[in-house]
Amino acid sequence: MFFTVVSYIAAFLTTASFVPQAVKTIRTKDTASISLGMYVMFTGGVMLWMAYGIATGQPAIVISNFITTILAVVILCYKIAGVRAEK
Amino acid sequence: MFFTVVSYIAAFLTTASFVPQAVKTIRTKDTASISLGMYVMFTGGVMLWMAYGIATGQPAIVISNFITTILAVVILCYKIAGVRAEK
Repeated sequence: MFFTVVSYIAAFLTTASFVPQAVKTIRTKDTASISLGMYVMFTGGVMLWMAYGIATGQPAIVISNFITTILAVVILCYKIAGVRAEK
Repeated sequence: MFFTVVSYIAAFLTTASFVPQAVKTIRTKDTASISLGMYVMFTGGVMLWMAYGIATGQPAIVISNFITTILAVVILCYKIAGVRAEK
């Protein structure tokens, strides 16, 4: 039981951690020091985790990765817009 | 079997995605648009995932989160140094 709680806290932290980054990015529109490569790979990864959670019937994995996907896509879109603006 | 492979690809992508961010941060020393809050929460989260993996005997969770922890700590240290330099 104890380690189940640990996994929920871990899932909450790794998911919720993208909220302050998304807020900062939306507010400042500054993505210069954010890696485009990171968010392309990361977004792909959390989308695959979501598919895995759906296929194996694990709602906790689906929900946490769905939230992370939305946040990561927001940051990725600002980064792509920033890259285009530089050109 | 197919979805086990999907989970390994997802784990690889979400872990390896921090490599380009760490490389960019080390090379540019620019962390202005990176959220301190994100990396404090995220680093805590992946450390908890590592503890969970050790406690439940799941090497894949331990290894992937150990790598992510190292990369996240590197980025976090540069961000903290950047915040201090601003003061």
